[in-house]
Amino acid sequence: MLSDSNARLGAARRLTSPRGRREAGRFLAEGAQSVREALLRPGTVVELFATAAAAQRHADLLEHAPAGSVSLISDRAAASLSETVHPQGLIAVCVAVDVSLAAALARAPRLVAILVEANDPGNAGTILRTADAAGAGAVLFTGDSVDPYNGKAVRASAGSLFHLDVVTGLDPATAITECRAAGLLTLATTGTAAVDLDELIDQDRLRARTAWIFGNEARGLPAELRRAAELPVRVPVHGKAESLNLAAAAAVCLYASARANRLQPLS
Amino acid sequence: MLSDSNARLGAARRLTSPRGRREAGRFLAEGAQSVREALLRPGTVVELFATAAAAQRHADLLEHAPAGSVSLISDRAAASLSETVHPQGLIAVCVAVDVSLAAALARAPRLVAILVEANDPGNAGTILRTADAAGAGAVLFTGDSVDPYNGKAVRASAGSLFHLDVVTGLDPATAITECRAAGLLTLATTGTAAVDLDELIDQDRLRARTAWIFGNEARGLPAELRRAAELPVRVPVHGKAESLNLAAAAAVCLYASARANRLQPLS
Repeated sequence: MLSDSNARLGAARRLTSPRGRREAGRFLAEGAQSVREALLRPGTVVELFATAAAAQRHADLLEHAPAGSVSLISDRAAASLSETVHPQGLIAVCVAVDVSLAAALARAPRLVAILVEANDPGNAGTILRTADAAGAGAVLFTGDSVDPYNGKAVRASAGSLFHLDVVTGLDPATAITECRAAGLLTLATTGTAAVDLDELIDQDRLRARTAWIFGNEARGLPAELRRAAELPVRVPVHGKAESLNLAAAAAVCLYASARANRLQPLS
Repeated sequence: MLSDSNARLGAARRLTSPRGRREAGRFLAEGAQSVREALLRPGTVVELFATAAAAQRHADLLEHAPAGSVSLISDRAAASLSETVHPQGLIAVCVAVDVSLAAALARAPRLVAILVEANDPGNAGTILRTADAAGAGAVLFTGDSVDPYNGKAVRASAGSLFHLDVVTGLDPATAITECRAAGLLTLATTGTAAVDLDELIDQDRLRARTAWIFGNEARGLPAELRRAAELPVRVPVHGKAESLNLAAAAAVCLYASARANRLQPLS
């Protein structure tokens, strides 16, 4: 029994590395909020680890875990599964939730975010959360983007990873081409674009089904991808800041689309 | 000479703690971007520490440092001043830049952000950067908010800490009252407000000089502060997300104000 529990824990620990996640097709979701959202998706949670304190605190959640899936673990074991400074003592092993681009586009999302080489897991998770809140149907991780199953990204997504279609491992040019072919207006965010977001809104162009394309935190989008998109767009900077943080720029753009579409349902 | 350099380094190292910063009235700005912006403000940088590699890489910056202010340090010493995983080897000791609320309001800012018990330094810095980009004149840190001079906050602000009026150590209720008295429309962001951001925009109310009030990441704004503000406002959530990340919500609100005022200069 103990050795079985140790084996489970060892397998879970391997999911703290990108390679371990890729090989297993599984990832870890930590904390009550993420675990709750994961449990709402049938078949997603395959194991649940809880410290005694967390099991007591979240007894309601544990009731919804699949039969036989819950293991009690020590605080130390919980820390070994955690990527946070203050481990919450509650970690679910989840089956990867990503879908193919074809499957995501088949649902005809009205709003999509395409991340190109997004580096920071906090940004990636925050953009998942913001995209969800803005009513987006899919977030595409392309090029060398950070793994959305990274512990910090999962945590920053605050459960939104389980709410919308996530597509990973895409070539960025292919993602843009496929979105265009699916009838989405592809907008490449770049600080040097001639057109700014306010003009797009003034021209009522954001009511179109739209895929927003966001580049790397430091380097932005490469020229060939700016050209692959239908239109480069600039978020206006009014003060002395050089640019916006990636997740802040995404929030402004995605919410501009949400507002433009507020009288028709997004999907 | 060596002991003088060691004394300087020891004094700088004390600035990695909130207490050390408070007692000295100084803080550390790390990395080329922050240091460049600090150097643009006369009298702000009092010392500059650089590793040999950083001194070579940023020779242009070092030329603008005050005479006698530059000390070469080892990689290890640079790491001891840094709060980042990858120290950049370039750290400025800066005089605190915050001003009094009276001074900030005397400049009649058209857009202000009030943080109430914001906990996360990354969020605080990102909001400084976003407020700057949106053309805000001041950011007020109130209650138990994180220290904007925290290394991570300074870094996340990407230089914006040096661009707008920062006010610290305020009582939140006083900050709101003073902003109202100064003629600013005070808007309290809260998920339960009856009025949402889209309605405010539709009613053209965001052209007013506005102070946006943002609460703690987990707990939001306390009821008495929601009441102290002129109007509680909700950022609409269209998908299944429970809420937005604090910095993302701030980006959406501040940019809504920026857009409403785009035909008149913000200050």
